[in-house]
Amino acid sequence: MKISRYKHDSETSYALGATLVFELLKNKPELITKIFLRPTEKQGEDITKILQSAEEKQIPVIESAKPFNVLNAKDACLLIAEFKKSSTKLDDNNHLLLVNPSDAGNLGTIMRTAVAFGIKNLAIIPPAVDPYDPKVIRASMGAIFHLNLEIIPDFETYKSRFPNHHRYAFMLNKDAKTLDEAKTSKESPFTLVMGNEAAGLPASYSEDCETIFIPQSDEVDSLNLSIATALALYAFTR
Amino acid sequence: MKISRYKHDSETSYALGATLVFELLKNKPELITKIFLRPTEKQGEDITKILQSAEEKQIPVIESAKPFNVLNAKDACLLIAEFKKSSTKLDDNNHLLLVNPSDAGNLGTIMRTAVAFGIKNLAIIPPAVDPYDPKVIRASMGAIFHLNLEIIPDFETYKSRFPNHHRYAFMLNKDAKTLDEAKTSKESPFTLVMGNEAAGLPASYSEDCETIFIPQSDEVDSLNLSIATALALYAFTR
Repeated sequence: MKISRYKHDSETSYALGATLVFELLKNKPELITKIFLRPTEKQGEDITKILQSAEEKQIPVIESAKPFNVLNAKDACLLIAEFKKSSTKLDDNNHLLLVNPSDAGNLGTIMRTAVAFGIKNLAIIPPAVDPYDPKVIRASMGAIFHLNLEIIPDFETYKSRFPNHHRYAFMLNKDAKTLDEAKTSKESPFTLVMGNEAAGLPASYSEDCETIFIPQSDEVDSLNLSIATALALYAFTR
Repeated sequence: MKISRYKHDSETSYALGATLVFELLKNKPELITKIFLRPTEKQGEDITKILQSAEEKQIPVIESAKPFNVLNAKDACLLIAEFKKSSTKLDDNNHLLLVNPSDAGNLGTIMRTAVAFGIKNLAIIPPAVDPYDPKVIRASMGAIFHLNLEIIPDFETYKSRFPNHHRYAFMLNKDAKTLDEAKTSKESPFTLVMGNEAAGLPASYSEDCETIFIPQSDEVDSLNLSIATALALYAFTR
């Protein structure tokens, strides 16, 4: 059995832990290539159920400690699913567009929040953290398996593919509308555009988007990206 | 020079990186016991400024690579401040009460968000992650130095100390008011009460609090704690 650490150019990635493996089996079983089971004495009810479901779907289950070591799984992690990376094209509903997101935890948390508020289309403009990195999958709590997800080379390409979307760019620009003002006048379909954790969005985005800022105290530098995105998603989906 | 990894019972903790050291110098210089400087050729303007400020405040600066190794600082981290752990009592303004928060990153992010929305009182009921863990300090981006922070042994003690606060408990309880309903009828001073990442709040909290839920899709299990807390903080401070 060959098992290697996840790399950006791998054709497969890994979902670690029973919760994620269960999500994958429920939503995208066709992507799973195999399931690894940690050799263990005490196998709980949830594990037994997952293994039954895998058997029904004819997914190979391999009992071995090795993948858990190679992938730095925690002791409590008893299952890993290896799955094919596969993205679904964006549809014409509302979008979230992340420009240069760099943190795996943030990206996964943003996926989880987007799905929680019914936004199922995520576009990412590189350079960006790899959305299939197991750390992203983990932080998404499986939400990635509910998303249409595309890496789009640049903003020009995005705009030409989705010319009818109303674009709202979140910037620390005090001339911009506040989030409360913007949400009352929002138009659909919309695209919420968020920049990089440290640098924010390039100033040029204000030319092609309505700009919005989230009022906040001067005592902190800015909000965490996953927090700002969550406030935007919530406000625009009420 | 004695330098050891941070422990829960240490009297001091560490702020890693120029941004945090700068925040500490600006807001709570009296807490700093010493500043460590990584021996380096190229010392930027920000570092020079911080060292000048430390000198003016008569804070000892020690040039040594050792603390950076002991504390697992990244290569780019050139400054570490050692500071006395010291909390300020809660005042009678609005509060955030976290019951059993377990994740350092979440706790720091929540501190950052609370300060961004003007909530300066944070109460924590243990068991909980140590709020002075350097990982929390890091994720707070220095917001911890703007907070009144208390560990309070249990909810009974909290209630008897702050009997006039209106308590709003966030629970996944569909009989509860929605966040949008609750914010329009909110009373001050208020306390927003949030539970543990995995377990949420014990059901008994619904007896002594108005319960609130954040409507979300069934496709995800729940929101991340720092996200749910941010939505609550934002809604209650508009």
